[in-house]
Amino acid sequence: MPLASHATVRSLQANEVQDLGYEMVLGNTFHLFLNPGHERIATLGGLHEFMGWPRPIITDSGGFQVFSLGHGTVADEIKGRRAETGRHSRILEISEDGVRFRSYVDGSARFMGPETSMQVQNALGSDIALAFDECTPFHAERDYTERSMHRTHRWLERCVEWQREHAPPGQVLYGIVQGGVHEDLRHESAAFVAAAGTPGIAIGGSLGADKEQMREVVGWALATLPEDRPRHLLGIGDVDDIVWAVELGVDTLDCATPTRLARHGTVLVPDPARRWRLDLTKAEHADSRDPIQPDCDCYACAHHTRAYLHYLTRAKELTAVRLLTLHNLTFMRSLMQRLRASIEAHRYADEAAAILG
Amino acid sequence: MPLASHATVRSLQANEVQDLGYEMVLGNTFHLFLNPGHERIATLGGLHEFMGWPRPIITDSGGFQVFSLGHGTVADEIKGRRAETGRHSRILEISEDGVRFRSYVDGSARFMGPETSMQVQNALGSDIALAFDECTPFHAERDYTERSMHRTHRWLERCVEWQREHAPPGQVLYGIVQGGVHEDLRHESAAFVAAAGTPGIAIGGSLGADKEQMREVVGWALATLPEDRPRHLLGIGDVDDIVWAVELGVDTLDCATPTRLARHGTVLVPDPARRWRLDLTKAEHADSRDPIQPDCDCYACAHHTRAYLHYLTRAKELTAVRLLTLHNLTFMRSLMQRLRASIEAHRYADEAAAILG
Repeated sequence: MPLASHATVRSLQANEVQDLGYEMVLGNTFHLFLNPGHERIATLGGLHEFMGWPRPIITDSGGFQVFSLGHGTVADEIKGRRAETGRHSRILEISEDGVRFRSYVDGSARFMGPETSMQVQNALGSDIALAFDECTPFHAERDYTERSMHRTHRWLERCVEWQREHAPPGQVLYGIVQGGVHEDLRHESAAFVAAAGTPGIAIGGSLGADKEQMREVVGWALATLPEDRPRHLLGIGDVDDIVWAVELGVDTLDCATPTRLARHGTVLVPDPARRWRLDLTKAEHADSRDPIQPDCDCYACAHHTRAYLHYLTRAKELTAVRLLTLHNLTFMRSLMQRLRASIEAHRYADEAAAILG
Repeated sequence: MPLASHATVRSLQANEVQDLGYEMVLGNTFHLFLNPGHERIATLGGLHEFMGWPRPIITDSGGFQVFSLGHGTVADEIKGRRAETGRHSRILEISEDGVRFRSYVDGSARFMGPETSMQVQNALGSDIALAFDECTPFHAERDYTERSMHRTHRWLERCVEWQREHAPPGQVLYGIVQGGVHEDLRHESAAFVAAAGTPGIAIGGSLGADKEQMREVVGWALATLPEDRPRHLLGIGDVDDIVWAVELGVDTLDCATPTRLARHGTVLVPDPARRWRLDLTKAEHADSRDPIQPDCDCYACAHHTRAYLHYLTRAKELTAVRLLTLHNLTFMRSLMQRLRASIEAHRYADEAAAILG
């Protein structure tokens, strides 16, 4: 699923995302809560109508962003940039009820807890709402991770309760498995979320410092989850990660990577040796008459050379973002189609090997 | 003609500009000379192939931009911001041969004169090349304007000469009428350019401090120009200016306005009382369910409310630039179609009155 954090897949029209073959996008509860506000979107007919997207929408709970204000992101952590003062100061209070924080839009004090998150997602009218959770950071100690996980479980119960009373017809809730990088906590969390009976389940939180640990952690969670309900992996999108995640039993994923890379001049290519990435801003492409990927049917590959796209990215032209976004989403769509077809044909292992090189 | 200054109409694919109905775009000789370089574009097959635009391209001569480094723009002048030191310092020397200046790309000293401009436009392979000229600023004294005009005339002779020897098949040259806001100079320049025999003629330079003077100045130039050759008005694009310019006999125009306004959140609307502009960033649109323009067939008007577009522009989303650019170019395309049809039907005055309100 591509991200439509701010009610748009950046640089694309909604119909273009449909034409690419995507069935669902992920809207951002936290950002839309602050701007333009969920009441405004509700008044304007809900998020589908607001952004002109008639297909399903999943909304995250806002938990990840609201806690990121304090924790920083996993990437920050791994790169040693934890605990920035400026960010920390945006969280005013974390309590059993939820989180008070300062809006990045106007500096006002705002609050979000499980019921708020559900109310916002209800107003947005998404098809899949995610339960409010704390995404515990990688650097958190086991003790904090465990206490946070138990609070997230209590929040899940409140979300289920709220949802039972108020949810609009058609909106379903996904619980989120937390537990950090600890095997027993992941099993405990998966069992708790499964027992809560939500129609689908997401796996969130810090998945580890590297790909090996990430695979292990997701495996722990999946081992305890029921197979008859869809399992969503939050925020994972590298090609190799997708291949092993699907193999482990993940059904859906969302990730900012394809669209974010495009905004920074990097395109996805079927080349494991390059980790599936080609940085078009590099001078080596300045005279290349090659397309990004010869067998790709996106507009950029059909009509433009790497030289032209290199020039546009270096000149910071908006058209570059658009063309690269189209390509990266085409690449991802093709990857998922291949994986899906190979599952149906019972030849997943071969397809995975072919993709991973 | 929309501007494709940096080898793209900002935020749009080349095929989309075609689908909008545009027959020609204007490429920027000065910018493409500095980045990615005309030799590189020539090696890659010329500007048409480089940017994937199969229809005609007009390239300006680079004169406007190269002199703007020293003079500042007309808007700067009228607003009293003349002679900024930082800008002045970019011009190293103006001589009979041309201009030495510092590149904004890498700070290197570069030179552009009539032959350079022709060489660059030749390498780009545009269909219409413009002769190298000095666009004398509004604040210039009559004496400077006159001397500059005579130099521009001598440069035209050199461009014609160069073009005769070297021009690729199919590329034609337009001379440019200068002469500032002085009636006798405009007549003299128009007569000189007409006598030079270029297949088309452009009107450039400072056209005055306000719309009334602009109309007068363009009228002087047109009065002396032959009617059997296309007459292009450089850099004019407000709705009322287009209506009177076409009435006076202008055949083609180019302007940054529709695309530049879109990048700043303003859309064109058929409302003379608003001077045909609607600033979507204003809070009054935050809850509006109206489209930009009910009878417009662009994607933005067919699918989105002003409220959504207001939100996207305020959130500085790239999708906003794209949607507003599509609308503004649709608006301009429709305006030109109306004017063209009314000329053919011999009812231009009525149509103009209907448009101007």
